[in-house]
Formats: sequence, C-alpha cells, structure tokens
Amino acid sequence: MNNTALKIQVEKIKVSKIDQVDFDNLSFGSVFSDHMLVCDYKNGSWEAPKIVPYQPISLDPSAKIFHYGQSIFEGMKAYKDENDEIFLFRPLDNCRRLNISAKRMAMPELPEEFFMEGLTALLELDKDWIPRNAGSSLYIRPFMFASGTGFHASPANQYKFIIATAPSGSYFAGKVKVLIEEKYSRSANGGVGYAKAGGNYAGQFYPTQLAVEKGYNQVIWTDDNTHENIEEAGAMNIFVRIGDTLITGPTSDRILDGITRKSILEIAKDEGIATEVRKITVSELVEAAKKGTLKEMFGAGTAAVVSPIATFGYRDTDYDLPELENSYASRLKKRITDIQYNRAEDPFGWRFKV
Amino acid sequence: MNNTALKIQVEKIKVSKIDQVDFDNLSFGSVFSDHMLVCDYKNGSWEAPKIVPYQPISLDPSAKIFHYGQSIFEGMKAYKDENDEIFLFRPLDNCRRLNISAKRMAMPELPEEFFMEGLTALLELDKDWIPRNAGSSLYIRPFMFASGTGFHASPANQYKFIIATAPSGSYFAGKVKVLIEEKYSRSANGGVGYAKAGGNYAGQFYPTQLAVEKGYNQVIWTDDNTHENIEEAGAMNIFVRIGDTLITGPTSDRILDGITRKSILEIAKDEGIATEVRKITVSELVEAAKKGTLKEMFGAGTAAVVSPIATFGYRDTDYDLPELENSYASRLKKRITDIQYNRAEDPFGWRFKV
Ligand SMILES: Cc1ncc(COP(=O)(O)O)c(C=O)c1O
Ligand SMILES: Cc1ncc(COP(=O)(O)O)c(C=O)c1O
Repeated sequence: MNNTALKIQVEKIKVSKIDQVDFDNLSFGSVFSDHMLVCDYKNGSWEAPKIVPYQPISLDPSAKIFHYGQSIFEGMKAYKDENDEIFLFRPLDNCRRLNISAKRMAMPELPEEFFMEGLTALLELDKDWIPRNAGSSLYIRPFMFASGTGFHASPANQYKFIIATAPSGSYFAGKVKVLIEEKYSRSANGGVGYAKAGGNYAGQFYPTQLAVEKGYNQVIWTDDNTHENIEEAGAMNIFVRIGDTLITGPTSDRILDGITRKSILEIAKDEGIATEVRKITVSELVEAAKKGTLKEMFGAGTAAVVSPIATFGYRDTDYDLPELENSYASRLKKRITDIQYNRAEDPFGWRFKV
Repeated sequence: MNNTALKIQVEKIKVSKIDQVDFDNLSFGSVFSDHMLVCDYKNGSWEAPKIVPYQPISLDPSAKIFHYGQSIFEGMKAYKDENDEIFLFRPLDNCRRLNISAKRMAMPELPEEFFMEGLTALLELDKDWIPRNAGSSLYIRPFMFASGTGFHASPANQYKFIIATAPSGSYFAGKVKVLIEEKYSRSANGGVGYAKAGGNYAGQFYPTQLAVEKGYNQVIWTDDNTHENIEEAGAMNIFVRIGDTLITGPTSDRILDGITRKSILEIAKDEGIATEVRKITVSELVEAAKKGTLKEMFGAGTAAVVSPIATFGYRDTDYDLPELENSYASRLKKRITDIQYNRAEDPFGWRFKV
C-alpha cells in the first residue's frame, strides 16, 4: 500500500531511542517505538492523522476517559521475514472490529483508510523497531478514547485515536494453568463483552488476581447466568480437543470475535481436522478429562498466539492435560505463524504486505 | 474537621477564574473550580495529597487508563446554607464506596483521611465556588485511574486520585421519560455493576442514545438474564409507589448501592411511609399502571436528587404516571434537601459541616 491517498504529516523524533533497546530480551509491551500516529475527532469529524514522536498526552481532568470509560483498543502484530519485508495479519479485520467496538461504546467510527494508511506509514517509519528474533514481533496498539470534557454522564464530543507500537517477546512464559470461574463474570447478555472496551479488562483483574494467588495464570470465564458454559480467557478465545474433534464456543454478545480464533478454525478445516463451533459445558469438560478423552485445551489470540493449557482447575480439583507429541496446538501454531512471518504459502489471503 | 493531621501542600492559582462564571445559569459539571486535589500512588503506597490549580494531566500513551479501563469515581455535592456555612452529605459513605470500587477493579484503596482531609481542605480553599442559588450546589468529583504504563493486560503499578469540583445546576431539565430496556444490559451477575467504574457508564451510552432517539431521556435497566426485574437507571436508583407503598429493588452485585437510595428509605420510614425492598418486576409495574395503582416512579441519586418520572415506556407502549398533589417524591425531596442545605433538623446525623 504505497500510493497513499491521505496526506499524513510526519514530525520525526530528533534522536532515536532504538539503541537503548535489548532486542534479545524483550518483555511484552513495555518498550515503545519512536513514533506514534495521532488522530483527533472534533466538531463531528476526524482530522487528518499525524505521526509524531511517542510522547505524553495532555488531558483535562474532566476528560470523559477518566470518568465514563469510553475507551476501546485493538491488538495486532507486525512480522518481519528473512528479507526484512514487513507483514500484517488480516489488518482490516482489526479496523472493522475497532469500529464495531466504537459503535457499542457510542464513539465515532474511524474511516478505514485513516487506520490502514496511518498504520502502514507508521510502520514504514519505525520499521527498524520490528524485531527479527524468532517469537518476537512488533506489537501494535491502536486505541481510541474520549478526550471531550464534562462531568455529565453522556458521550464525549471529542476523541483521540492513537496507534503506538512496542517490540515484544512472548506473552506467557512457561506452562499455562487456568481456573474455571464460577463466581465472577466478564460480561452480560446484552452487554459490551463483544467490544474490545477497556472496562472489560479492568473487571477481570481482581478475579484473575484471586486465581493467581491460588497458583493459576488465567481465569476461564463462564456465562454469568449458569456458569456452565466455557466462554473465553483474559485475552484469548478457548479451544478444546475432545477425542479428535477441535471445539470452540460460538461468538455472542458476551465474547470477543477473535481473529486468531476464526483463523484457527479455517486452518484446522484446511488441515482436515474435525471442528465444531458449539457450546462447551464445564461438566462435559470435566467428564472428558476424567475419561481421558480431553486431549488438549489452548487459548488463541494475537498476543498469546496459540497457548497450550497444561492444567485446568475446577472446584478445588486440578485436571492435567496430557503432553502430546503432535498436538493440534503445535500444528496450528506452526501453520498460523508460518503464514504471519511469510515462511509458507498463504492460501487464505490473510497476509498483508506493508 | 479543622485539626488536619495531614500536611497538605497547597499551590494556589495566580488569578482566580471565578469572575468568568455565571452562577445564575449553571449547567451540570461543565465549569471547574480553581483548584484540584491530586494524590499519586507509586511503589506500593499513596504519596501525600497536594492541592494545585486545576490543570491538564499528562500521561504516557501506554498508561493503563487508556487501555484497560481501571477507573473509578464518586459523585458528591457541597451545599451552602444561608450563613455561608458549608455542608457535605454522608461523605464517608462515598469514601468507603470508592474503596469498594477500587477493590473490585484491582486498584489500591485510599486512606480515609486522605479523602476526608483532602476534600475539606479543597472546599475551604474554593468555598467561593459553592453556589448559593436554590437548586445549585458544588458538584464534587473524586476519581481514581491507572497511570502506570504498559500494554500487558494486568493491573497498573501507578495510580492517580484526584478531586475536582464544578459549580452545577440541576441534572435533568423538565419531565423525565424512561424506557424499560429489554435487549441491552448494564451489568452481569458476578460483574462490576456495584462498582462506580467508568466502563459501566460507557456501556450505557449507546442503548441510551437509542432510547433518546425514541423520545425518552433515560433507560431503566433490567437484569441481563430475564429482563423481568427493574434494576436502576443511568445514574439513579429507582423507586416505585404502588398504592401507598414505596418499593425499591434490593442492591446486588449488579446495582450501585446508592447513598440517596438508602437515605430515602430511612426518611420514608421516618415519615411513616410503608416501604419494601424487594424485586420489582416489569409485569407488576405494567399491571399496576393499567389498574391505576401505580402512583409514582422516581429516580434517586446525588446528581439527580429525586427525579420524578412522568412516563415509562415498555414494548412500544407508554404509560403515563398521574400528577399528584402531595407526592412522596416531593415530600422526600424536600426532606433530603432540607437536611443537605441545613434548612432542617438532621435526626440521622448525615450532615457533615466542613
Ligand atoms: C477478550 C479477548 N478475547 C479474545 C481475544 C483474541 O482476539 P484476537 O485473536 O483477535 O487477538 C482477545 C485479544 O485480542 C481478547 O481481548
Ligand atoms: C449507576 C448509579 N446508580 C445509582 C446512583 C445513585 O447513587 P448516589 O445516591 O450515591 O449518588 C448513581 C450515582 O451516583 C449511579 O451512578
């Protein structure tokens, strides 16, 4: 995408910070690249995006982001191949999901070309920040929040859309142990669970802390009414393999429609793996674990890619999953990352060259 | 509270902005007083609060408030009586509720004396900003948010607590028409509905906009599972009068435990009004409206005080409420505001002299 129709004004950083970064020891999302894209919404429309040095944002104390939670975000990655060519994975899907979130949170939708052209211009400028190391990538964080002011509980009249990037290593370190949650919930029927809205994450922290204190890494959310249906994990959709069938729950207004999830489903079909999209109940899971037919569980998401779950806890009992030689998780992870890093054919047309 | 144990550092504004304010035409929460209280949480503890001129806040683009919705707030008012004495209403309850919200959102609890002494010092300094006009007051907005940085979805390690104030007129103008919501929801069982968390408000804006397009001011939320139980309105708890009994729903993890609500319940008992705290179903409401036993409905909250509802809509039908001479709403509103503005005895010990 080089014939940029949009005029994106660029203010370059005076001295790059890149020399201060240890690319061999990257944590997740804690070091930020030189530049960011900023776009302001005022008087009913979006102003042209600008690229500026990564820098603090100044806001009035009554800006509605501080009070009424109008904030949404996306999570993407930029991948570099052997020849230093840069790729994104299904970026338009992130842009469209951002706008789905925006609508639900009464925020203005962003023109797709602002997102796509702004992002590609930013990546071209900061391309040296995209790690080459295996397992690392440039994590991309597009986000939008209410900058308009006032203590009246109503939508703001001004918003900021920003894209910042962070060279990052892997999201989880080590084996993932999850706890099936029966008391707390992530989302309501008719609520905002399907939006990538800030408040959905803050609400998960306390229950997750309680689970961490018990020795788990992550909570598996169930529906708030019966707590019988497995829904999703912190920032991942959940897959379960019972026998040789790969199962994931259907999306709904309580669940984020993950791009990794839907890609994994398509890859699995392409690999000849039997898939089912249907409700997974906790009882089914426990029963399968007891019978030995529960072969695998894994989380899927942009940050965590495909993260195999080693153990799930439910009502004071831990159920360990077997360690398989040729697991679906490792096959599917290899296929999706090979596409992302341009190491294999992409029959699906998902890879996007910057 | 004059023997301040805490040392609160004060930086005064050079030139007050008060002359620019038209105290006879105040809207709600859109003009801000000269100073604000700021308190920072770092390295595991709260630093001493400071009073500074009301000014912009500068934050890193990766501050977690922008991404993961760790934000909570309170809403209070300062009232001035005839002799220019200043009063708060049950302020410690706001402080405690802030800490209940903080816990649920995995944010640090604030020491009560920071809240109480910080607030009284701020009000003493900005006392000229407290309106004297009938129906006006100084709206007080204590809020806390995550200022710590990083794109990892986990609690921040730094927070800011701020109190800003805004001289304000009434929240609603004119008659209030509400719509009983059956599709969208405000909160989940096991969710964060009982916390005064930013995300709870953003999630209400879109359904409220849809209701406004149909000619209503406000949505009445029902439970997300059956949509049969009346829960609360935007920033108000709901009361219903059927026959001569005043009814309000029980609090739960889906509903904010409103200070106005519980005060109204006590005042009503003191007035000899029969009260019930129990589930109110939509069918009961519609039936009572049809039979003519539904006498009143009103919302109760700090911002809206007691706001009589003129009409409720349910499934394409509008039900008008009668206009009563000596309504419970007007009696209760008079009693509570007389206490707040120091115009009457306070047998409950709720008034707090600054
Ligand atoms: C709640 C939630 N579920 C699932 C996902 C996975 O979605 P995706 O694969 O699009 O990254 C994410 C992360 O983005 C998430 O935040
Ligand atoms: C969701 C919600 N319910 C009820 C209330 C009323 O609570 P209070 O009377 O303490 O102001 C408020 C406002 O504070 C609110 O935000």
